[in-house]
Amino acid sequence: MTISSSESAAASRINTQIQLTGMPQGKLTPEVFRQVDVPIPVCGAGQVLVQIKVISLDAANRAWMQGATYRSALEAGQVMAGGAIGEVIESKADGFTAGDLVFGDMGWQRYAVLPAQDVRKVPRIEPITHLLSVYGIAGLTAYFGLLRVGQPKPGQTVVVSAAAGSVGSLVGQIAKIQGCRVVGIAGGAAKCDWLVNTLGFDAAVDYKAGGLSKALKEAAPEGIDVYFDNVGGDVFEACLFRMKQGGRIACCGAVSQYDGEPPRHGPRGVPGLIVTKRLTLQGFVLYDFYPEIDTAMKDLQAWVASGQLKVIEDVRQGLENVPDALIGLLAGDNYGKRMVTL
Amino acid sequence: MTISSSESAAASRINTQIQLTGMPQGKLTPEVFRQVDVPIPVCGAGQVLVQIKVISLDAANRAWMQGATYRSALEAGQVMAGGAIGEVIESKADGFTAGDLVFGDMGWQRYAVLPAQDVRKVPRIEPITHLLSVYGIAGLTAYFGLLRVGQPKPGQTVVVSAAAGSVGSLVGQIAKIQGCRVVGIAGGAAKCDWLVNTLGFDAAVDYKAGGLSKALKEAAPEGIDVYFDNVGGDVFEACLFRMKQGGRIACCGAVSQYDGEPPRHGPRGVPGLIVTKRLTLQGFVLYDFYPEIDTAMKDLQAWVASGQLKVIEDVRQGLENVPDALIGLLAGDNYGKRMVTL
Repeated sequence: MTISSSESAAASRINTQIQLTGMPQGKLTPEVFRQVDVPIPVCGAGQVLVQIKVISLDAANRAWMQGATYRSALEAGQVMAGGAIGEVIESKADGFTAGDLVFGDMGWQRYAVLPAQDVRKVPRIEPITHLLSVYGIAGLTAYFGLLRVGQPKPGQTVVVSAAAGSVGSLVGQIAKIQGCRVVGIAGGAAKCDWLVNTLGFDAAVDYKAGGLSKALKEAAPEGIDVYFDNVGGDVFEACLFRMKQGGRIACCGAVSQYDGEPPRHGPRGVPGLIVTKRLTLQGFVLYDFYPEIDTAMKDLQAWVASGQLKVIEDVRQGLENVPDALIGLLAGDNYGKRMVTL
Repeated sequence: MTISSSESAAASRINTQIQLTGMPQGKLTPEVFRQVDVPIPVCGAGQVLVQIKVISLDAANRAWMQGATYRSALEAGQVMAGGAIGEVIESKADGFTAGDLVFGDMGWQRYAVLPAQDVRKVPRIEPITHLLSVYGIAGLTAYFGLLRVGQPKPGQTVVVSAAAGSVGSLVGQIAKIQGCRVVGIAGGAAKCDWLVNTLGFDAAVDYKAGGLSKALKEAAPEGIDVYFDNVGGDVFEACLFRMKQGGRIACCGAVSQYDGEPPRHGPRGVPGLIVTKRLTLQGFVLYDFYPEIDTAMKDLQAWVASGQLKVIEDVRQGLENVPDALIGLLAGDNYGKRMVTL
């Protein structure tokens, strides 16, 4: 049924999309978005028409509203950007045919017409949501950020923030597979219990409970060898002060800084502690590691198959629910990878 | 004459030392130090008695008064610590004989008795002050910090702060030898002119003149590939915002943070810009690179011999002048490596 109704929408050339009405100044609110019906553009030479199946929600979506990052800044009136998995329903590009499953920045809409070079063919894995979680940007970011940037050794202490999130939940589990002691930082006792009891973390620290530094000291009494930072801000600062000599910080995101006013000041101890503790801090994005992607996929698939890696997904339904899904994600109400199926 | 009077002091077993009376809370002042005559300790088994020739002044001396760094914190009543070059006048340790020239943390005093493992034999190079500047910690820190941590490539833009100082003046010149565009940051127009006209920097920025960000943008219009940070604070922040994608920051010191109250906050843009610009920040200390020291010495000697590397030294005289020499160094009144001969 879904297919035939979608096909009729495609045939009638009506697209539904969620556009930005302006840029948020403080916390993200639903008013920044509007749902609009627009015609589906004609698929031109070198392009593909894609029917979107699953939209990925990512903290980075919010960062894109703040200005240019690794992609150009978003602007009012545009369709909201976002990674998604879709199916090619018309192709005027070499190498793509109807029925291909593709990944790309397709935006929050039912259909997208994109230049072929802006999408990447992906295998038909079931469930296809795994293509956005463990086998997508989240999984590969966790894999490369931890193993190539963080470089933990067996027996070392790894701390990860936003530990119940899409990337963090995988980072902690991969660190356990490497034989590390793993401490997760998350908001609320329920998430912390879940990290330890369901995901097998050695300890968890509730950053909302107060006394973060003390709790971190108890959870990582010998200090931190590798800190995988998803949040920035106070949690970053607390971890910085607990780093061991020669420790490494993988800087993956700064979600605490995305939604609201830009912070007036950065964390204390920079650069003083970087010097005295001989730390390495490294920012990275996934495409730095594209040459090694086959190795990563093979490892991730093996760990999932053996049950060593639990894939946690938080899947919602319906295009109209995408804005709330992002607003909730920024408030930290998700367990694992959040996405919305259409 | 100097030798015979020193010998008679050694014979009479009187040492003069500068002790700490307490720890400074704000800016360093002369009251923190007192000059005291004490007996020279007996040279025991495994020890050497050294007559100190040249004392090195380093911003790190001040950091040691703030707490444990890569060495344990200093305490009131101790002789003030400091690197120095001296001559062995009595040895009860294998491998050392009277007349050997040695380097070590000997403190601010005329004589020191030290375990042999705490000193390192150095070659008799003339002038011996070069053993504390270009062939000492300053030169090796500049060499390894720039080449191994910063890893600049020919044609890239290198920015160095405290550029007229002992390490900075060498970093900039070594970067020029590598074929980089070099921008120095220093305090005052006179130092900036000197960096460009005497040391051959491509541009210099006076951080005391105001408008640091704008001046930096003009001096490094394409952005910064490698920033060699000696100062931390506002200068660090301004450079962080001008870094290019994939840039590297060698964190060598934070002299702006040593002398005074600890800062309430760190630089903005941490860790956000580290993520979006995929930066690497790395703290280091010299002994990380000891296995490569022969290579470094060979390169430095060749560059000095060919005239490509100018050795800038700021030499004062007399033990009683050591406290002022450090206070002035922290205020930035030196050109090149500051030391005091006894």
